[in-house]
Amino acid sequence: MAVTDPVQNLQTLIRCPSVTPKEGGALSALTAMLEPLGFSVERVTATEPGTPDIENLYARLGSSGPHLMFAGHTDVVPVGDEASWTHPPFSADIANGEMFGRGAVDMKGGIACFVAAVARHIEAHGAPKGSISFLITGDEEGPAINGTVKLLEWAAAKGERWDACLVGEPTNPDQLGDMIKIGRRGSISGFVTVHGVQGHVAYPHLADNPIRAVTAMTKALMSPPLDAGTAEFPPTNLEVTSIDTGNSATNVIPAKASFAFNVRFNDTWTADSIQAELIRRLNQAANDQELRAGRPAIRYDITWSERPSHVFLTRDDALISSLSKAVEAKTGRRPVLSTTGGTSDARFIKDYCPVVEFGLVGQTMHMVDERVAVADLEKLTEIYAHFIEQWFENAKA
Amino acid sequence: MAVTDPVQNLQTLIRCPSVTPKEGGALSALTAMLEPLGFSVERVTATEPGTPDIENLYARLGSSGPHLMFAGHTDVVPVGDEASWTHPPFSADIANGEMFGRGAVDMKGGIACFVAAVARHIEAHGAPKGSISFLITGDEEGPAINGTVKLLEWAAAKGERWDACLVGEPTNPDQLGDMIKIGRRGSISGFVTVHGVQGHVAYPHLADNPIRAVTAMTKALMSPPLDAGTAEFPPTNLEVTSIDTGNSATNVIPAKASFAFNVRFNDTWTADSIQAELIRRLNQAANDQELRAGRPAIRYDITWSERPSHVFLTRDDALISSLSKAVEAKTGRRPVLSTTGGTSDARFIKDYCPVVEFGLVGQTMHMVDERVAVADLEKLTEIYAHFIEQWFENAKA
Repeated sequence: MAVTDPVQNLQTLIRCPSVTPKEGGALSALTAMLEPLGFSVERVTATEPGTPDIENLYARLGSSGPHLMFAGHTDVVPVGDEASWTHPPFSADIANGEMFGRGAVDMKGGIACFVAAVARHIEAHGAPKGSISFLITGDEEGPAINGTVKLLEWAAAKGERWDACLVGEPTNPDQLGDMIKIGRRGSISGFVTVHGVQGHVAYPHLADNPIRAVTAMTKALMSPPLDAGTAEFPPTNLEVTSIDTGNSATNVIPAKASFAFNVRFNDTWTADSIQAELIRRLNQAANDQELRAGRPAIRYDITWSERPSHVFLTRDDALISSLSKAVEAKTGRRPVLSTTGGTSDARFIKDYCPVVEFGLVGQTMHMVDERVAVADLEKLTEIYAHFIEQWFENAKA
Repeated sequence: MAVTDPVQNLQTLIRCPSVTPKEGGALSALTAMLEPLGFSVERVTATEPGTPDIENLYARLGSSGPHLMFAGHTDVVPVGDEASWTHPPFSADIANGEMFGRGAVDMKGGIACFVAAVARHIEAHGAPKGSISFLITGDEEGPAINGTVKLLEWAAAKGERWDACLVGEPTNPDQLGDMIKIGRRGSISGFVTVHGVQGHVAYPHLADNPIRAVTAMTKALMSPPLDAGTAEFPPTNLEVTSIDTGNSATNVIPAKASFAFNVRFNDTWTADSIQAELIRRLNQAANDQELRAGRPAIRYDITWSERPSHVFLTRDDALISSLSKAVEAKTGRRPVLSTTGGTSDARFIKDYCPVVEFGLVGQTMHMVDERVAVADLEKLTEIYAHFIEQWFENAKA
């Protein structure tokens, strides 16, 4: 059975130019791998006014529980400067033990390995004692509106329920086996405009420079630290990402100034409580009496990013230990259980079942010459196969 | 002699549409007023690559000392929204005791009154016991490159020397008699670019957000206060006029951020010493160890405005008291001797002779419906005439 070879699977997938929002043949190729294994495959096109239509895929093998979901995406980011690639980005060329191609690690490689792992599991043990499903979106690298969220809603509406999920995103910073993600920080962005009074720099008492307040307000957001971190999470971190005024006249105090910030928050906070704390700090700075020299608080507007990413932490010990032991068994390395890094679609899945993430080494993701060690593909397939076996063993027990 | 009437003089001047850099007939009209009084008038066109040619005027009556200069400009700022004017901006219409027109107070009015004052002086006392000159530029409201600086150089090169100068800019905030300017703060602008390291907000340890340093650096420029003011000057004041990043991606830490500032400094400082102090503060903030968390000082570039305005203070008691007494005699108000406000061409003249400034009420300058109370024109003419008499009396003694 050809699909037991992750190298072949990945070459097939990389050769589909599925740059978001294009399906590029990738879901069809995946369908052709899964149906012979017995999966029932459904293609789901999601639409939303103002965004491109997106093709997604849901495939299930088995009808009983326990039910293990593998989640990921076949869409890839643009190739960047194609001329800079050592091998063409959709060639899947192998050179010196590495396969080159956009999506090699993020994350067609993870899909290719999980398909191979399922095929090997069936070869060795027969059909799983429960169900395995693939939830694959084509909109992870894009607006993420017509992807995982809608696919989960669609599947749940038709009665699908899951007991656990593995997301195959590249989670290892340096070597296969470094890191499992068991949670993610939340993320929210704010956009502030501070309204002062325009005037001539020679007559500052007739004006009210909003930049004084911007300096105080951005400083108040950044310090003191929001927390010191928790047992599972690094400290909450806020970055001011832009301050903008656009005043080119050096003799003019501007009427207004704006800034934007993003905060990555741990489980000390909810999206609501971190917003409340940041508003408290902004108000305090806007009303700082030394700064304001007796004037009332400076006026400002704030808007927030539409959909905050909520913080989550997976506490399913059986799930985590099945994965962790599989990694250790196949790599000899005990993976760090981490909650660092950016957001992933796991933030949507955690509302349906416990979710963990483990995949390839992420070093070349989104870069020119994205590539994966061929040996890692075999190793990850073995890890996934061992995990599947362990998980069904534990879930049955 | 018609030119003894400042109202007629001003109407003639306002009706010349001399928006910088256009002469608009204003210097020709002034020539027609001065030549009958005995002035020898010279028209000087100044040129500089990249700027428009500018016509200027220098007129002298008498050939001996002491020598009193009156300085000003006939160019005016644009009219703005002409439809919003109650009376057309070059009409010089009089309504309810006020004359409307661009330049009414800034500063064709001052010129009109000084011409009338000289004419009255000659009528009453004969030719002055010394010399009176007019140094009038057409480039005060523009780049100021082909104006007062070049006219002074030109006159000095042909042997002109002056004992004192009165600048006729509008110096009174509310009422005629409020304020004489006896000095001006210096002014210099700085432009800073802070270089960080771009990165993803979820991995701040791999990036170096320049905005942290911008916040610290701008705060360090603004506080603590640079000084508490001096006997003659208000405290030095610094305004950050713009902070700009231009980063629209809320998940990206920007590579660099820029800010601009302007400082108005008193005689505690020279242009060199204030720059040195600001650089010291910037370096300290750029190297702040708490902020930098052990990293080396953040890298930044700074450039300064090309030509700083130097601070000056006029210490010619005879000049100041002649003017002050004339103001008090004609208005019953003792004028404040001030060094507040913006820069003026007095900053160039002070290198040649002591200089003071007194003119009309500035409230409507640069605005739609710029206008002057007709009664103020008569009153200012009387003040100027009294000053001329007093000054030659004192200078002779």
